[in-house]
Amino acid sequence: MTTNVGIVGFRGYSGMELERLLTAHAGVTPWLLEHRTDISHAPQPIGHRAAERIPCTPEAVAGAGLSLVFLATPPEVSMELAPALLASGAKVVDLSGAFRLHPAAAYERWYKQAHTQPALLEEAVYGLPEFYRASAAKARLLSNPGCYPTAANLALRPLVRAGLIDRDAGVVCDAKSGVSGAGRKPSLKTAFGEVAENFSAYSFSEHRHVPEVLEHSGLDEHAFNFTAHLLPVHRGILETLYFRALGLRDAGDLLENYLDAYRGEPFVRIYPAGAVPDLHSVVRTNFCDIGVHYQAASRRATVVVAIDNLVKGAAGQAIQNMNLMLGLPETEGLL
Amino acid sequence: MTTNVGIVGFRGYSGMELERLLTAHAGVTPWLLEHRTDISHAPQPIGHRAAERIPCTPEAVAGAGLSLVFLATPPEVSMELAPALLASGAKVVDLSGAFRLHPAAAYERWYKQAHTQPALLEEAVYGLPEFYRASAAKARLLSNPGCYPTAANLALRPLVRAGLIDRDAGVVCDAKSGVSGAGRKPSLKTAFGEVAENFSAYSFSEHRHVPEVLEHSGLDEHAFNFTAHLLPVHRGILETLYFRALGLRDAGDLLENYLDAYRGEPFVRIYPAGAVPDLHSVVRTNFCDIGVHYQAASRRATVVVAIDNLVKGAAGQAIQNMNLMLGLPETEGLL
Amino acid sequence: MTTNVGIVGFRGYSGMELERLLTAHAGVTPWLLEHRTDISHAPQPIGHRAAERIPCTPEAVAGAGLSLVFLATPPEVSMELAPALLASGAKVVDLSGAFRLHPAAAYERWYKQAHTQPALLEEAVYGLPEFYRASAAKARLLSNPGCYPTAANLALRPLVRAGLIDRDAGVVCDAKSGVSGAGRKPSLKTAFGEVAENFSAYSFSEHRHVPEVLEHSGLDEHAFNFTAHLLPVHRGILETLYFRALGLRDAGDLLENYLDAYRGEPFVRIYPAGAVPDLHSVVRTNFCDIGVHYQAASRRATVVVAIDNLVKGAAGQAIQNMNLMLGLPETEGLL
Amino acid sequence: MTTNVGIVGFRGYSGMELERLLTAHAGVTPWLLEHRTDISHAPQPIGHRAAERIPCTPEAVAGAGLSLVFLATPPEVSMELAPALLASGAKVVDLSGAFRLHPAAAYERWYKQAHTQPALLEEAVYGLPEFYRASAAKARLLSNPGCYPTAANLALRPLVRAGLIDRDAGVVCDAKSGVSGAGRKPSLKTAFGEVAENFSAYSFSEHRHVPEVLEHSGLDEHAFNFTAHLLPVHRGILETLYFRALGLRDAGDLLENYLDAYRGEPFVRIYPAGAVPDLHSVVRTNFCDIGVHYQAASRRATVVVAIDNLVKGAAGQAIQNMNLMLGLPETEGLL
Repeated sequence: MTTNVGIVGFRGYSGMELERLLTAHAGVTPWLLEHRTDISHAPQPIGHRAAERIPCTPEAVAGAGLSLVFLATPPEVSMELAPALLASGAKVVDLSGAFRLHPAAAYERWYKQAHTQPALLEEAVYGLPEFYRASAAKARLLSNPGCYPTAANLALRPLVRAGLIDRDAGVVCDAKSGVSGAGRKPSLKTAFGEVAENFSAYSFSEHRHVPEVLEHSGLDEHAFNFTAHLLPVHRGILETLYFRALGLRDAGDLLENYLDAYRGEPFVRIYPAGAVPDLHSVVRTNFCDIGVHYQAASRRATVVVAIDNLVKGAAGQAIQNMNLMLGLPETEGLL
Repeated sequence: MTTNVGIVGFRGYSGMELERLLTAHAGVTPWLLEHRTDISHAPQPIGHRAAERIPCTPEAVAGAGLSLVFLATPPEVSMELAPALLASGAKVVDLSGAFRLHPAAAYERWYKQAHTQPALLEEAVYGLPEFYRASAAKARLLSNPGCYPTAANLALRPLVRAGLIDRDAGVVCDAKSGVSGAGRKPSLKTAFGEVAENFSAYSFSEHRHVPEVLEHSGLDEHAFNFTAHLLPVHRGILETLYFRALGLRDAGDLLENYLDAYRGEPFVRIYPAGAVPDLHSVVRTNFCDIGVHYQAASRRATVVVAIDNLVKGAAGQAIQNMNLMLGLPETEGLL
Repeated sequence: MTTNVGIVGFRGYSGMELERLLTAHAGVTPWLLEHRTDISHAPQPIGHRAAERIPCTPEAVAGAGLSLVFLATPPEVSMELAPALLASGAKVVDLSGAFRLHPAAAYERWYKQAHTQPALLEEAVYGLPEFYRASAAKARLLSNPGCYPTAANLALRPLVRAGLIDRDAGVVCDAKSGVSGAGRKPSLKTAFGEVAENFSAYSFSEHRHVPEVLEHSGLDEHAFNFTAHLLPVHRGILETLYFRALGLRDAGDLLENYLDAYRGEPFVRIYPAGAVPDLHSVVRTNFCDIGVHYQAASRRATVVVAIDNLVKGAAGQAIQNMNLMLGLPETEGLL
Repeated sequence: MTTNVGIVGFRGYSGMELERLLTAHAGVTPWLLEHRTDISHAPQPIGHRAAERIPCTPEAVAGAGLSLVFLATPPEVSMELAPALLASGAKVVDLSGAFRLHPAAAYERWYKQAHTQPALLEEAVYGLPEFYRASAAKARLLSNPGCYPTAANLALRPLVRAGLIDRDAGVVCDAKSGVSGAGRKPSLKTAFGEVAENFSAYSFSEHRHVPEVLEHSGLDEHAFNFTAHLLPVHRGILETLYFRALGLRDAGDLLENYLDAYRGEPFVRIYPAGAVPDLHSVVRTNFCDIGVHYQAASRRATVVVAIDNLVKGAAGQAIQNMNLMLGLPETEGLL
């Protein structure tokens, strides 16, 4: 007996990844909710049995008995759809940025548009399970974290909490993402001819993911320097973090702190001294992998953190949250 | 009437690039000096007229009347070949790291091997024309800069000289290079299956290019945090530099400093506020392109610098130096 | 209760894929058999639990109670290891070409080396389950098909059997493969700098996979024109087949023939008229996808067939054969 | 003293390539004619001196004294712009398909739109210099060949003329192109995420380049089987041609025929027996490279032909034609 769940935005990369992962998930059956049909799917072989499609309306959602709906949509679409879906009795996991920043004024500063659902914004739970597992399990509306903040916060928060970062010197986050992070809608910026054999810095401290990092890591804006770069790969995020450390003898101390913070966590993996993850370490997995480099003489620390932006940075983490919200084993469908 | 010049190591990527650029150079005729033949060339069409090949011996070099020889070889080979080539009367431009660090002890610390030519090391001129044009023109043995240091020093030195960097907070250099930087000799690290759809951090502050940056930028080791990453592209280096600025009002001040420093320089280009270069800006050119981002409230500055590692980072800069050493126009064959 | 199986050659791409797939297989437990250790693995996070490693000796195989061993090794190594492994009581699935061609003279013509195990060659069963399911299930030594022949034979044999190909005009097979088909051992041919932004024809009718196609499709050597090309991708084979058709009215007739031939087959998928598969259709799956194009006026037919060379073309098909040999459900671990 | 020439469509890949090549051409000065501005350029450094921009009007063209205008535009735009440009006194080189097929009915069959300039179509000269050098030199309106037909015709015509192809068995042309062949306008088909790590057949005998091959090679439609594939590279076309040969003893005979046909041609290169070109052989050059494979026993011949689709397949050949039309040396700016 499986639970029925729906996907809005199933033609985008996050939505396609949700369908792929949920189809292999033993506890749920995915349904595809038609909202807009501007991007086409690839051709399918004869006899291919895709997930069933229904309109994205409260009636259809109720009729199909969907317990939970994923919104893999732009923030303005998520704000438009969430109220009625919740009213129909379904829980909602939103993969957009619509419900990530508090208060509404913060949303409006960083997303440059009005927030039309301030009450829901108030209610929404930020779903980074390693930090907020208990509240995620009780959420009716869950806001799935951004891809860059997922990696940055998993790498930074244990260090900030342990007082290992010299905030005066500041933290640099040099972030690199694959092209799927920009979505599937065609644009010159994501065209093959512009991306292949290229590499570019495309956003600095004004990136809308910056306040998400600050809020959950505990750093303040003046101490955080961020640049987002576009890699000529389809999937994967790698962030290289730099800071001056306090109170460390060697790389082992730094690793110990991570091992303590993430003991028992199924999806965070720490590398031994001398090793760091790369994109191949994490692509097509829900893991967040962390490795470190430390120079004791100068107290310069470097942390390398990698995730798959479509899995731990989007669909995989959304399913991890869904598992918590539906009372399923947290790792179901993700290992 | 052209000058005859030779290339040792013409089957590697830097040597192939030297041949390509020198073949189109109006002032010189390239000769290929056979030293080792472990990597094969691609097949050539019928009637293809390649540059002439001769043995890499002092007699052959003298016999062909070569005025200058490029060593696109590993440092131990450069140390082995340079004395006899110089004795035969040719000038030498060495693209390896053999003659970049002073004194010999520094070489031995960073390259982990003895320096067998300390007298030549003493004599060698470091050939970054934008800083050392006059001495390059007089050199008998010229040491061509490393690829990462070329970009980093062109970006950092004018800022250090103008006192715009808060050295206490330190400088981060997050460096990314295409695969050709690792040479043409086959290895698992540069195999297509390991590099494509991947991205990795492969070296930290122990990278042998670090002391080159420190020596010519004027920064000290404790204030400089460096990581080298491998991009899934063939050519190009992009470095993102982060520091806390002193005495700046806005991005315009930062740009003004660069424009002053590089006024009249044919191969350094500065981008207007709001724009930064990417790899496509510089690939297959001898340009070093620089753009900036600045947040006045937090004094956080970011500089993006890009070069083609095989051109301004190797063969192109070597030819720029050759032009100076042979009294040819500095930009000949490079625009 | 699972069955223990071993992998020799687990550091190559086929062996790594076997480990990946078998780790997720509910019916077996994989063991890694150390034979040669010339290629290194990627670094692993702390606490990573890999499959257990034992020496590749008959004693260790017997001691671990391995029921079946995969040889993901070059043909000369497979010939060397197979006899003792079989003598120890294990069944063997060989992924090399050592046991694919009969008689030994054919092996010697195409592989240009002596066959040292002619008796085992006699015994070996060619494991293309769609054609030889019953004999695969009874095999002690199973020879897993080559990657190009798997795709070509699945596309050609039903047409040859139905008499739809005008043999007089001949069949063209224009085959393109990702780089992993050349193995993980570093070489200039598979270096990133030689493969990226390139495409090349590297082998013609002398390719050792040609006789495998002829033997199982029923075509003769004079009627078959084959070229192998190298694609700048990691995984995947796409073959475009051309022939003049006999007795067809339209594309529907051609499709009908395939649908009849593969009715009930879990891993062969046929596309509707007007659609053909691409690499993304099959990568990371065990499917063989087939689509057609037909011009009735000129009787020119084109068939596009795609597989993942590491799955249906190697490790996946080997597991499909293992499932048959061990009496497990044929699709176990492969959907 | 240089001649002024104009480029319409300078923001597309062919137009960008024209600007790049013409900027380095000693005999002409390029001007950019603004027609539509839907695709943006990359940011430029301070002080960058691009070619001058003027409106695309007969007055502006006359005012600037342009002797020749390149149309790197879609066919419907070329048909719209050509009459007035010609009337203003400029010669026109059209890179679209608007003036390639005769009569208008053929255009309408293959391009699925009406031809609005049948008189100009009558006048237009097909500009493949290796075949039609004399008429190209006298053209007022020159139609630059398609990319696939340039390669196919250079490979096929000498064989057809010499009677070396068994037309009864037919010719297969398996064609593969880089993504730039599809233009710079964003679309899902050319998005990085759809193209990278993929390979697909996207068009068969209905491709609009097919009649261009037939008309100039001398083959008839029933004997020609064509498939176009999309490669995950930016530039380059490689075509593999298959046929049954008549009257050949060995590969040497085939090569001799090509060497005779192209003796003295500056841009066609023939490879020795046993070697074929790849994309790296020709990318960023105006060369068309040809190599062969032949099996005497079965009379099966394979020809591999490669060009850069943006150079010999578009902008380079357009400049070669321009050189002829303006009385400049044919190779000027192209070696």
